[in-house]
Amino acid sequence: MAEVETKEEYRDVLQSLLAILRAEDEDYEQIEDFLEEMHPQEIAHLLESLPSSDRQVVWEHVPADSEGEILVHLADDVRSAIMDRMDTDQLVAATESLDTDDLADLLPEMPRDIVQEILLSMEQQERERLRSVLSYSEDSAGGLMDLDMITVRADTNLDVVLRYLRRRGSIPESTDSLFVVDREGRFQGLLPLTVILTSDPEMSVAEVMEHDVIGIPVDMSARDVANLFERRDLITAPVIAEDGQLMGRITIDDVVDVIREEADHSLMSMAGLNEEEDMFAPVLTSTRRRSVWLAINLLTALLAAWVIGLFEATIEQLVALAVLMPVVASMGGIAGSQTLTLVIRGMALGKINPTNARTIFRKELGVGIWNGLIWAIVIASVAGFWFNSVKLSIIIAAAILINLIMAAISGAVIPLILKRMGGDPALSGSVILTTVTDVVGFFAFLGLATLFLI
Amino acid sequence: MAEVETKEEYRDVLQSLLAILRAEDEDYEQIEDFLEEMHPQEIAHLLESLPSSDRQVVWEHVPADSEGEILVHLADDVRSAIMDRMDTDQLVAATESLDTDDLADLLPEMPRDIVQEILLSMEQQERERLRSVLSYSEDSAGGLMDLDMITVRADTNLDVVLRYLRRRGSIPESTDSLFVVDREGRFQGLLPLTVILTSDPEMSVAEVMEHDVIGIPVDMSARDVANLFERRDLITAPVIAEDGQLMGRITIDDVVDVIREEADHSLMSMAGLNEEEDMFAPVLTSTRRRSVWLAINLLTALLAAWVIGLFEATIEQLVALAVLMPVVASMGGIAGSQTLTLVIRGMALGKINPTNARTIFRKELGVGIWNGLIWAIVIASVAGFWFNSVKLSIIIAAAILINLIMAAISGAVIPLILKRMGGDPALSGSVILTTVTDVVGFFAFLGLATLFLI
Repeated sequence: MAEVETKEEYRDVLQSLLAILRAEDEDYEQIEDFLEEMHPQEIAHLLESLPSSDRQVVWEHVPADSEGEILVHLADDVRSAIMDRMDTDQLVAATESLDTDDLADLLPEMPRDIVQEILLSMEQQERERLRSVLSYSEDSAGGLMDLDMITVRADTNLDVVLRYLRRRGSIPESTDSLFVVDREGRFQGLLPLTVILTSDPEMSVAEVMEHDVIGIPVDMSARDVANLFERRDLITAPVIAEDGQLMGRITIDDVVDVIREEADHSLMSMAGLNEEEDMFAPVLTSTRRRSVWLAINLLTALLAAWVIGLFEATIEQLVALAVLMPVVASMGGIAGSQTLTLVIRGMALGKINPTNARTIFRKELGVGIWNGLIWAIVIASVAGFWFNSVKLSIIIAAAILINLIMAAISGAVIPLILKRMGGDPALSGSVILTTVTDVVGFFAFLGLATLFLI
Repeated sequence: MAEVETKEEYRDVLQSLLAILRAEDEDYEQIEDFLEEMHPQEIAHLLESLPSSDRQVVWEHVPADSEGEILVHLADDVRSAIMDRMDTDQLVAATESLDTDDLADLLPEMPRDIVQEILLSMEQQERERLRSVLSYSEDSAGGLMDLDMITVRADTNLDVVLRYLRRRGSIPESTDSLFVVDREGRFQGLLPLTVILTSDPEMSVAEVMEHDVIGIPVDMSARDVANLFERRDLITAPVIAEDGQLMGRITIDDVVDVIREEADHSLMSMAGLNEEEDMFAPVLTSTRRRSVWLAINLLTALLAAWVIGLFEATIEQLVALAVLMPVVASMGGIAGSQTLTLVIRGMALGKINPTNARTIFRKELGVGIWNGLIWAIVIASVAGFWFNSVKLSIIIAAAILINLIMAAISGAVIPLILKRMGGDPALSGSVILTTVTDVVGFFAFLGLATLFLI
């Protein structure tokens, strides 16, 4: 089988695999040949792209030694469905090949008795390392770090290091540097592999090591770690305890996952979705999950309806109001969501913070006023011609202007308030915003009409 | 100054910097001290977080040797504003320290005469390398690759490689492997630095090199490259021409930028924004850009208004319809945008493709039907009690069911159609979806009311 590189090749793999699965006599050997050639992360990706019934069939033919790594890379939902069907022995076997950090990600999702069994099957030292990783939040540097690293002393000569590496015979994956520590295990600097290769072997580690190194505090948030890696083009970085002790290292592959997940999270939660959800979850499971979001939105829609209801008598006298009112609400919603998206993204990337929030606010307010004026005139003209009423066109112009200004203010302020209250701006921001623009839009338009038209 | 690591520290830097800028007697030396300690990418990030007037002041105090790299990392908008104010000498000087791939990103945005000058200032070989990178699209492997790499022959012994590296004295940044090529420059395999360090120096490159390596075709799309790096945990990968020639290498830091930009693009374009836009763009510039999106949305809002207008006579007889109709449209919009977001994201990640699109469609349709039934009953009850009419409640139930089913169908089908037509699902998907759910919602509700209520 060819390598799976592009999306097109990947689609072909999926197609051939589905053909085998759908054939009369399922040729399991062919499936195994397929999977044999694939990287665990690719198999995880493949499993996520398969309907759940096929997924179980394919899972049974996955190479046993990849099972653990595949589980680590699956979306939460898909993983737990698969783990539910594995027995204790299978689970224990799957975890055997895993790094401590990956194992620490999986354990919290396993039944307590299986976790006990896994812990018992480990060596003392390994178990203690695992406990130390488990004690940090999954979303912190401590939760991201792995413990597979090579440390050296500053007073060693490079030729000793070289001999040691040759005796060792292998170096952990994604290693670009060795870590220099003192007798007490405190971090002192980095010894890049490139430096070992290009320096005179007679020199000491102290002479060639990099001192000016970023040590990541063990409690730094995963998001900050990702921003740091991104801004400094790091490949690995040491994780340091408060007392200077070297705790572990973070590698770029785990950071890439954080970046991807975080971006997915912003996008998905703006639609009330969870990025860990299985695309092929059973219809009823998805229905139940989505209905929470629909319920919240129904409440806001009913609030808007109630506002309209206040003006029933006005609408009865001039039905044109009912025709035009969704335009007022919708323009506000669109303009507001532009400001909201900009601010949420800026906050996530750390580009908007209390220091410059005022400038952003003033700018967005300016845009709101200008766009309010422009669209007030355009919509007033359309409405005036359509319903042949100057008064109606003045009233809708005023309502549009009011709503677009309110939309800009809300779009800029809501995420800042939510953040300060400890909420997730991406999740609830858009619901709150639409509520504001609907209620203000309907109230301004129908209210002004009641005052000046009827 | 301390290292800038977390968002909090970053905010502090921004705050102190603004304090200096706002002080009576601007202390430029202090600004320079600040910037001296920062990484070019961090300065770029800082500049993007500054209002444009401050940005120019800070730019003038940026370390001259970082100017080029800072420009590379700025958002398009911010960069062109800064470059507009630089004269030819400054621009030529700024580009001098850049890698070929970074230079290739900047050149297309410079005036033609400056590009000529830069090309003339380069050595022959360098100029040809640059031309070769410029001939590839920015969004392809060829556009992402850099040419800084070390190649070795398979028949060399490792100790020769070691001596060569020591003589060379330095290794290009982000190097984790040397590239093995034959006499004609065709790619043959990788020689990881870790292998050089752990193997017996008497062995030949051929004996220890990795043969089974992913070579990236020079025309692979940047998105596919990113997915490949992500799935295989790559740090660098060779770029190969069709005839097997080694063209260059792609490193993870450039791939991380692609991943970030792509995710930003999905999020921003769903609100009709451009991810390269300057947060602090002048109010009128932003107003003009955003108004395009508002114009498109006004057309769809007017379409919806026109549908309502068809039923003016009906609404005149029963104003309750005007009160309830936004609920029908809004529930459809919300449900549809959930399906839409899921499908757009799945397509971007390569998890949804023609092979499994049908399964996704059936699932989303199922969710639409179930949620349609549930919310039809809930909303019918509310409407029935509110307006004390069984007929009205039956009609709104039917309209909700119809609209939620249409929403599911549209959410799943619109992105697939847009993709096939070569459009960007993230950009136009949500407008089209809302148009459908508004029009269908109003039409179904008011139409049914006209037929059965009046």
